[in-house]
Amino acid sequence: MRSMPTDAHIGAKFVVDRIVDMIRGAMRDAAREGALSDDAWVGIGLGSPGPLDRETGTVLETPNLGWRNFPLRDLIANSIGLPAALDNDANAATLGEWWQGAARGVDNVLGVTLGTGIGGGLVLNGEVYHGASDVAGEIGHTTIDSNGRKCACGNYGCLEAYASGPAIAARAVEGLHAGAPSLLPDLVDGDVDRITAAHVSEAIIAGDTYAAEVMRDTAKFLGIGVANLVNILNPEMIVISGGVTRAGDHLFGPLRSEVRKRAFKVASDACKIVPSDLGDTAGVIGAAATYHVARIGPL
Amino acid sequence: MRSMPTDAHIGAKFVVDRIVDMIRGAMRDAAREGALSDDAWVGIGLGSPGPLDRETGTVLETPNLGWRNFPLRDLIANSIGLPAALDNDANAATLGEWWQGAARGVDNVLGVTLGTGIGGGLVLNGEVYHGASDVAGEIGHTTIDSNGRKCACGNYGCLEAYASGPAIAARAVEGLHAGAPSLLPDLVDGDVDRITAAHVSEAIIAGDTYAAEVMRDTAKFLGIGVANLVNILNPEMIVISGGVTRAGDHLFGPLRSEVRKRAFKVASDACKIVPSDLGDTAGVIGAAATYHVARIGPL
Repeated sequence: MRSMPTDAHIGAKFVVDRIVDMIRGAMRDAAREGALSDDAWVGIGLGSPGPLDRETGTVLETPNLGWRNFPLRDLIANSIGLPAALDNDANAATLGEWWQGAARGVDNVLGVTLGTGIGGGLVLNGEVYHGASDVAGEIGHTTIDSNGRKCACGNYGCLEAYASGPAIAARAVEGLHAGAPSLLPDLVDGDVDRITAAHVSEAIIAGDTYAAEVMRDTAKFLGIGVANLVNILNPEMIVISGGVTRAGDHLFGPLRSEVRKRAFKVASDACKIVPSDLGDTAGVIGAAATYHVARIGPL
Repeated sequence: MRSMPTDAHIGAKFVVDRIVDMIRGAMRDAAREGALSDDAWVGIGLGSPGPLDRETGTVLETPNLGWRNFPLRDLIANSIGLPAALDNDANAATLGEWWQGAARGVDNVLGVTLGTGIGGGLVLNGEVYHGASDVAGEIGHTTIDSNGRKCACGNYGCLEAYASGPAIAARAVEGLHAGAPSLLPDLVDGDVDRITAAHVSEAIIAGDTYAAEVMRDTAKFLGIGVANLVNILNPEMIVISGGVTRAGDHLFGPLRSEVRKRAFKVASDACKIVPSDLGDTAGVIGAAATYHVARIGPL
């Protein structure tokens, strides 16, 4: 897999040119290695942060990239000269896990991606469920504590305000300011405001009790949101992805136990909660699958 | 429509005999009126509180009726001598609204029933969505405030602990004990512990400001749970049913505004929140539809 930073601050045209260059590079390499000739390519699958409109291939709004009503699909399709299909990145990643990863053979699976935000995708009865306006699966902004922490979206108590990467870091730093003993400050030369969720995982591996406690709290908050999903959708599987899953049992142990505590027994007994199989490639594999479903037929 | 109290405390056999008697009575009346002869009946649709197993027609557990692993479907089918199909009562009611009621022609609709508990049903892409073990739609026990009120299920902060009938009454009584001026005590001869959610609706109609405030709070709590559904499932419509909907705009006004505040704009713009069209008959009409889908084919 090729990957590159978005560098969205340089401008939307720059990002599109970068994506087009990467696609052309991949096609060239495949031709050179004799794997695929130029006329073997049938189309391009794209996963993008949303909300977006699949019908028109337009990204409606992405606060992190600064795009609004941006015709991403057609810009790329026209540059490459191949048809393209666009879906939400979290939907693509969940479809990827269902097609080739942790959720192969599973009828109903929810994907939850922990990163700068918290994304979600739903594959129900073997198909991505999009909802009325292509924004189904926005678990990050479900409320778990109506009087809780302020979220970047302006509301209070969203799951994202507790269990996203920046939220984990913020909770860790709060405890340090309150005097919790920890290795964390040493990892950032004492500048605690530079602490990220990755440092928390690193400190856990180094045996830090406080960092393990921060992760246990994260797992409990995440468990409340996941239990809500389990009660509403009664899925066979929930696939958790993102850097935080490196914490392994420090995350999955208390997460599974919180879900068991809060969800209906029949529902939680039926639901496996597992880490992603495909990691960062889930979205790319899923984007290819998105193209197949949109333009060719069921997988 | 015929209806009768369950009187479940007398025993499961008594309840089944009652249901069988009602079905026989309806068949007799239809024959007498010349509407349907005895051999015109093809089967029986049943809606029951769950969780239940549709495959075996067994009610797994209903705290309110005291049943456990109860083979309701076959007991009734064998007594009447016709095949039967069983589904959750909230699923049946939602299917009824989709087939003949408020949600005709809508692809994705969620039904939310406010009563002693809070039930939910999901019709996605025109079919009841059951999940892995037939318990999808349990919105009543989704968490809206992880540090909140104790729920009968043992957890804290379930939607049901705020917006079910008993929860509305409990919140109303708490305020009265704290000295809130209200007509409510007069409706129960001063015995405030007898206050029910119906009294709250009655007091609102009589112009009681405190009762209206209790309903506004109810709508806000309900709005948090409904906004979670809107963010996760992005439905075209949410149908609210149950006695509390008699409060009309006192409920729907603040409910819609809380959902607009908490759900993604694209998702809340796409979602109508409406009262039930069929009222108490939704479950019966939906049970007939359940039989059709299970035994005959799509509606």
